[in-house]
Amino acid sequence: MPIITLTTDFGEKDHFAGATKGAIYSELPDVKIVDISHSVSPFNIAEASYIILNAYASFPKGTIHVIGIDSELNPENKHIAVLLDDHYFICANNGIMSMICQEIAPTKIVEINIHDKVESSFPVLDVFVKVACHIARGGTLEVIGKVINTIKPIKNLEPFVNDEQNQIIGSVIYIDNYGNVVTNIKKKFFETIQKTRSFEISARNYKFKKIYRKYSDLVNFDIPIEKRDDEGRGLVVFSASGHLEIAVYKSNCDSVGSASSLMGLKAMDTVTVTFNKV
Amino acid sequence: MPIITLTTDFGEKDHFAGATKGAIYSELPDVKIVDISHSVSPFNIAEASYIILNAYASFPKGTIHVIGIDSELNPENKHIAVLLDDHYFICANNGIMSMICQEIAPTKIVEINIHDKVESSFPVLDVFVKVACHIARGGTLEVIGKVINTIKPIKNLEPFVNDEQNQIIGSVIYIDNYGNVVTNIKKKFFETIQKTRSFEISARNYKFKKIYRKYSDLVNFDIPIEKRDDEGRGLVVFSASGHLEIAVYKSNCDSVGSASSLMGLKAMDTVTVTFNKV
Amino acid sequence: MPIITLTTDFGEKDHFAGATKGAIYSELPDVKIVDISHSVSPFNIAEASYIILNAYASFPKGTIHVIGIDSELNPENKHIAVLLDDHYFICANNGIMSMICQEIAPTKIVEINIHDKVESSFPVLDVFVKVACHIARGGTLEVIGKVINTIKPIKNLEPFVNDEQNQIIGSVIYIDNYGNVVTNIKKKFFETIQKTRSFEISARNYKFKKIYRKYSDLVNFDIPIEKRDDEGRGLVVFSASGHLEIAVYKSNCDSVGSASSLMGLKAMDTVTVTFNKV
Repeated sequence: MPIITLTTDFGEKDHFAGATKGAIYSELPDVKIVDISHSVSPFNIAEASYIILNAYASFPKGTIHVIGIDSELNPENKHIAVLLDDHYFICANNGIMSMICQEIAPTKIVEINIHDKVESSFPVLDVFVKVACHIARGGTLEVIGKVINTIKPIKNLEPFVNDEQNQIIGSVIYIDNYGNVVTNIKKKFFETIQKTRSFEISARNYKFKKIYRKYSDLVNFDIPIEKRDDEGRGLVVFSASGHLEIAVYKSNCDSVGSASSLMGLKAMDTVTVTFNKV
Repeated sequence: MPIITLTTDFGEKDHFAGATKGAIYSELPDVKIVDISHSVSPFNIAEASYIILNAYASFPKGTIHVIGIDSELNPENKHIAVLLDDHYFICANNGIMSMICQEIAPTKIVEINIHDKVESSFPVLDVFVKVACHIARGGTLEVIGKVINTIKPIKNLEPFVNDEQNQIIGSVIYIDNYGNVVTNIKKKFFETIQKTRSFEISARNYKFKKIYRKYSDLVNFDIPIEKRDDEGRGLVVFSASGHLEIAVYKSNCDSVGSASSLMGLKAMDTVTVTFNKV
Repeated sequence: MPIITLTTDFGEKDHFAGATKGAIYSELPDVKIVDISHSVSPFNIAEASYIILNAYASFPKGTIHVIGIDSELNPENKHIAVLLDDHYFICANNGIMSMICQEIAPTKIVEINIHDKVESSFPVLDVFVKVACHIARGGTLEVIGKVINTIKPIKNLEPFVNDEQNQIIGSVIYIDNYGNVVTNIKKKFFETIQKTRSFEISARNYKFKKIYRKYSDLVNFDIPIEKRDDEGRGLVVFSASGHLEIAVYKSNCDSVGSASSLMGLKAMDTVTVTFNKV
């Protein structure tokens, strides 16, 4: 029996996530449900895309990912089920899947058409659970929807490169729990443009000339610990998911501050990489 | 083996929820535990009532719901176990069950009397877990408590109707993750009083003359998307659970604002429906 | 198959916890994973120590506890696996285990040395999951690390007693979800110093001369409920985990206030117990 994961903006407090889990267990008592996140910012499709992109591949092939963000059915917001990289994704066709689909082409997309058979004031509970359980029991996508070929894109996912190929203009796509600022500039893309050139990364009035391999590479371990001043210093790394990330060493949003709070960086802000002449 | 659910005000950080789950698994290695919510506001019985009312029925019959809010045993706060609608509920007799019991009469209520056999500085861990595991193993309520006939009510759950039957005076019982304002006016009750009359809903100085079927019914999809101004507009719907709810379309408490923040509405505030002459 | 628990500072929103669970289920489809907490304050080793100390013992013997706080590998922050009280703990050697080890001596400690075989930009996912699954399959610690004899301590865990033995100088180690202020003064230690003497507990300018057995012992149930003024009053108890705790009756950080907010007490603040002459 495959795993069913949940990624929603239901929050940690309300009954929505609990009710959804109860409905799944009512249909499939032996399934395993895993919460990925219920704390996506309400209606924030970019955040949901980023979270599911970075979580899904750790799960076994065949896992079914229910994504409940802005899922009310309306003429512009249809429900879809997508098979991609041997994982299933059930969500509204509102751009959530476009970040993943940029990296891997979907094997199959269907527009869900079982709405005549189910109520729909709470679509995750009424529609997505039904579809997830159908797939978990081995059902095919064609039974619950009609095949379509394209999904709705979200814009500005890709960084821009100027004609001279000496500047990447990217943007902040996510602020994580440590206040680290994640951009849409990925390592492979960066290296393709960079070649062997040195560079300067700019975000507001902050500049960085080095990308560390990991956070603590900032620390000079030869200096005695009581004389160091590395905590709270800014740095740039490629995150585990390969995104260029502006961080603060041992940051804490509520106490010492973070890259986001200290540098005033937020989602959609511009981050620029300028490459020097060789 | 039935499911055991947890609804508490333990929060997401402390060890309380983890310790409770560990204690259950120590007694019953094969049981399934589902978190409904650990983020009920501390000691907020009305919130807990609303959450459990809206979550429980999605679970299979026979599910055991542990509710850990204000559960310290004292002369005015006894522990009870309730069988209702083929579900079990274990909590303090402090009003938590009165919202559910208004809708469905309990089959059986017992006042738990195993306290001489267990320690009690952490009653959810020490008492409720013991009772839940007893029930999960098929034990009867009579073994762990003595039958009682009534539970403690909480006041002001029901909206008030004036003598002329042209006004419902309700109140806000819950603010959800989207900042939507949930009232105690339920759809069936509303329609019984309304008959065929038109109406005006008032909350502070905000007025509404229409109840939408769903949030996006507010949107005029004939207008091009870039010319619309529906995001951030207030509206009234009946929620999935049938409560009259004042919402803001695509609200977000932390960014664009919500019904609660924009209209200044909070728990216990009055919401009035005035019906016009036919 | 033993349980694997997770205690991290990943937060409730990001993909880190979900990805970790996916990776474990990919290796061990039938294991049970229990979230203890993902809301430890970022890099807060003292908080993590307190949470794991108070949660672990409720789980069955043989449980494997993954603790993901400040876990990046560097010359001063090695990875360890510890067998203690028949439980396994996997974490960085940064002081997290010192609070538990003060109470119970570890049976075995190994410094993990599988890093040449795994990537390490996300050590919980890449290293700790591997080690946890190895142990869950019945593997020995010696296979994944080399035995060491001591772990890194954190300072100031123990309260100080003056030479006259008439004063305990302790400190605040944790603020819980109710804003209750937990100190490092444990019941057994307190009673050993106290003998039969009366005492005064001081925190900032607040004084307490009594330790209640439980929170509601503050209430005089002989007074009619509408005439009582006990909600919001400060008191001292020994918590379920045996720590001296300054609390406020029916506190709520977001509304009526809490011991932490009302008395201005925070982590690391001093709490003093002065014993009177007999």
